[in-house]
Amino acid sequence: MFARQGFYQSTVSQIAREAGVADGTIYLYFKNKDDILVQFFNFRAKQVFASFRQEVDKSGNSTDKLRSLVRRHLEEFQRDGDMAVVYQALTYQNIDLIKDQIKEVSKMYLDIVGEILEKGQEEGTMRKDLYISLAKRFILGAVDSAINNWLRAGRKYDLASMTEPLIDLFIRGIGNR
Amino acid sequence: MFARQGFYQSTVSQIAREAGVADGTIYLYFKNKDDILVQFFNFRAKQVFASFRQEVDKSGNSTDKLRSLVRRHLEEFQRDGDMAVVYQALTYQNIDLIKDQIKEVSKMYLDIVGEILEKGQEEGTMRKDLYISLAKRFILGAVDSAINNWLRAGRKYDLASMTEPLIDLFIRGIGNR
Repeated sequence: MFARQGFYQSTVSQIAREAGVADGTIYLYFKNKDDILVQFFNFRAKQVFASFRQEVDKSGNSTDKLRSLVRRHLEEFQRDGDMAVVYQALTYQNIDLIKDQIKEVSKMYLDIVGEILEKGQEEGTMRKDLYISLAKRFILGAVDSAINNWLRAGRKYDLASMTEPLIDLFIRGIGNR
Repeated sequence: MFARQGFYQSTVSQIAREAGVADGTIYLYFKNKDDILVQFFNFRAKQVFASFRQEVDKSGNSTDKLRSLVRRHLEEFQRDGDMAVVYQALTYQNIDLIKDQIKEVSKMYLDIVGEILEKGQEEGTMRKDLYISLAKRFILGAVDSAINNWLRAGRKYDLASMTEPLIDLFIRGIGNR
């Protein structure tokens, strides 16, 4: 898939050529070039989120649910490294065009994590004094950062293998008790 | 200070005008426009890091050192929100021009955090079974993400007030013991 810069440098004609269709065909489906980016983003986000939700629903307790979510997240971005590049670039550049989509996708993710944390508090496995709205952002931020480190290191190691170490840091923290 | 896009859209003449000097003067100090960005980045990074190091050195135990580092980090970015925008954009876009500088700055930060964690292990306040190279990236990622959330929320709340909640999540984690 296109990295953002490449996408912005290419013309609709080039995109049509890559897709193996006529220029006019592109305009049957998309208003303009920006619309291609927005619609692609929405399409992939929905796909990926359906898979996140499925993983979480079939896991048992809250720790397992968090582990399944993080693992599937890392697996999906590892499988589609170009999506990871596009997502990170869009998220951290705060582009007006796609701001609302990014906000919506983040909200979906934060909602899932929030549900898991509340369930954990009910079960007694998560701290009752957690400030959920901060803790869920903390978790998303740490996972995003693990993906970004992997991208910057040239995608050279198994990203999904970071699941257990991350879950361990989330749950137990770095402090010795 | 310039946000990246504005910087790239402006000419050397415009930069000279903003700085109140003649175009030729700019070329006495900088090879070209990109060189201005790189040199500015290096200059600010050195300033900010000297202040990080000072804060950490004057704090007592490892938990206090970590708290001082995170607080100063959040304070510096809050004080200079445009620097925060430039830093986040540069870091997450993986621009070749400034890749080495970003790597060097991250390494300086990770080195400080690594030292603090090792000291904590010696003191017995941090877990002995921590995988330091992961834990330090985890901490930088979580702080970066707190800064990014603040930027995206329109810089509307006191960023430095996130220090204690972040330190609490780092040290104690989300799990109930």
